[in-house]
Amino acid sequence: MTFHQRLRRAWERSGSMLCVGLDPDPARFPDVLDAAPDAIERFCTAIVDATADLVCAFKPQIAHFAAHRAETALERVCEHIRSQHPEVVLILDAKRGDIGSTAEFYAREAFGRYGADAVTVNPYLGTDAAAPFLEAGGVIALCRTSNPGAGELQDLVVDGTPLYLHVARMVADRWAAIGDCGLVVGATTPSQLADVRAQVGELPILVPGVGAQGGDLTGSVQAGRTGAGTGLIVSSSREILYASPHDDFADAARAAARRTRDAIAAVA
Amino acid sequence: MTFHQRLRRAWERSGSMLCVGLDPDPARFPDVLDAAPDAIERFCTAIVDATADLVCAFKPQIAHFAAHRAETALERVCEHIRSQHPEVVLILDAKRGDIGSTAEFYAREAFGRYGADAVTVNPYLGTDAAAPFLEAGGVIALCRTSNPGAGELQDLVVDGTPLYLHVARMVADRWAAIGDCGLVVGATTPSQLADVRAQVGELPILVPGVGAQGGDLTGSVQAGRTGAGTGLIVSSSREILYASPHDDFADAARAAARRTRDAIAAVA
Repeated sequence: MTFHQRLRRAWERSGSMLCVGLDPDPARFPDVLDAAPDAIERFCTAIVDATADLVCAFKPQIAHFAAHRAETALERVCEHIRSQHPEVVLILDAKRGDIGSTAEFYAREAFGRYGADAVTVNPYLGTDAAAPFLEAGGVIALCRTSNPGAGELQDLVVDGTPLYLHVARMVADRWAAIGDCGLVVGATTPSQLADVRAQVGELPILVPGVGAQGGDLTGSVQAGRTGAGTGLIVSSSREILYASPHDDFADAARAAARRTRDAIAAVA
Repeated sequence: MTFHQRLRRAWERSGSMLCVGLDPDPARFPDVLDAAPDAIERFCTAIVDATADLVCAFKPQIAHFAAHRAETALERVCEHIRSQHPEVVLILDAKRGDIGSTAEFYAREAFGRYGADAVTVNPYLGTDAAAPFLEAGGVIALCRTSNPGAGELQDLVVDGTPLYLHVARMVADRWAAIGDCGLVVGATTPSQLADVRAQVGELPILVPGVGAQGGDLTGSVQAGRTGAGTGLIVSSSREILYASPHDDFADAARAAARRTRDAIAAVA
């Protein structure tokens, strides 16, 4: 099954557009994991098992593993998701982007080594640089990000239209002709999410920035969902991962994930 | 010493603006390495030792290691460069880019784990996303890349000026106020390199695309060098790495590196 097929099934099965971002930070782990040499793997696996029935996707963020020399832990977490929760979509958040032959090696990393259904990709290098990813798996392009300075380049106006909408058009017209793709649009400005949705038809949109980053969940869901009431992958990381600093962390993560899932579903 | 200080010393000491890109591809390794479990490390170390006196920098490309689960080999190659050839600048080619706290983890990966002097970064997320890198080490921003479709976004016109020159200005004005930076401009179009040089003063420019990619070496050096006759990091990978498929590969790499170094120095 392709990325789009798996995502549609995940939305249907779970009734959820929530994605839990796996951003492990040992400095914030509960005390119970302090002495464990495999703390990163155990933390992520516990979060995954506690929330899998509440989500459409998991999104491990690779820098949080790479900074700690924990690629093997990431491989094991991905393998755990694929074997124990095969109905959940696996998105590798790596924001890759390079040319030709190097893009092929990055694609092997994401889809071969980690077995991801989709990987996040930076659009600055254009369609030919994205093709090796699109030919190997799902691709989610950065479009309008949620950081304070996102607009510095992304909002520059080209022919009367901001750059991020040119990116949206490029992805919808050219990348979608090569393979299964989607876009990243932060939850910080729902009007921009509405503008992107108007450009990209039914393409899935990954929406980070709810939860700890303070994005507008209700406004984002209203602006971004499709006529079918799906179309979004609403990602929350820290608010769920670090809901409790004690050994009830997995239960607290489940409760936080349930609240966010329900808040998404309750949007009128 | 900072990235800029180390780079100036490397240009002076070596008399070379050549950078050897370390893009190991086991499918192209010489037969003599076929059975070696540590082939990637041995190949890179042999290339490094054969060319170190001919270059100002080495540039390992991380996807070529990550696709083969070879992060430990990359750590060892970086450690070898720093301990055996401490006068050569170490650039991690990773084209990273993410927001806030995640950028901090990527910076730890590049500067802590691998001990790089500088890392390549994608500019699409803006200055605040680059700041965690700039505060921790050198940053080389993608500006105008060498792939066939580079212009799809990078040449879009904003207020009469192509986007890549807005990126050049952002880096020269705002990124340079935070830390040591430079830019990537492909060797494929020297006139664009001249336009970038006119925007960025003496900032170093990394120029990939000579050698196997067929870029214009003479035109690029003429367009990009500074008044001091330096300012460029001219990168070649495959033409040097795979100069011979036999067990004379390191000698052949040295000969190819010497030819490119001399060609750069001979530009009138």
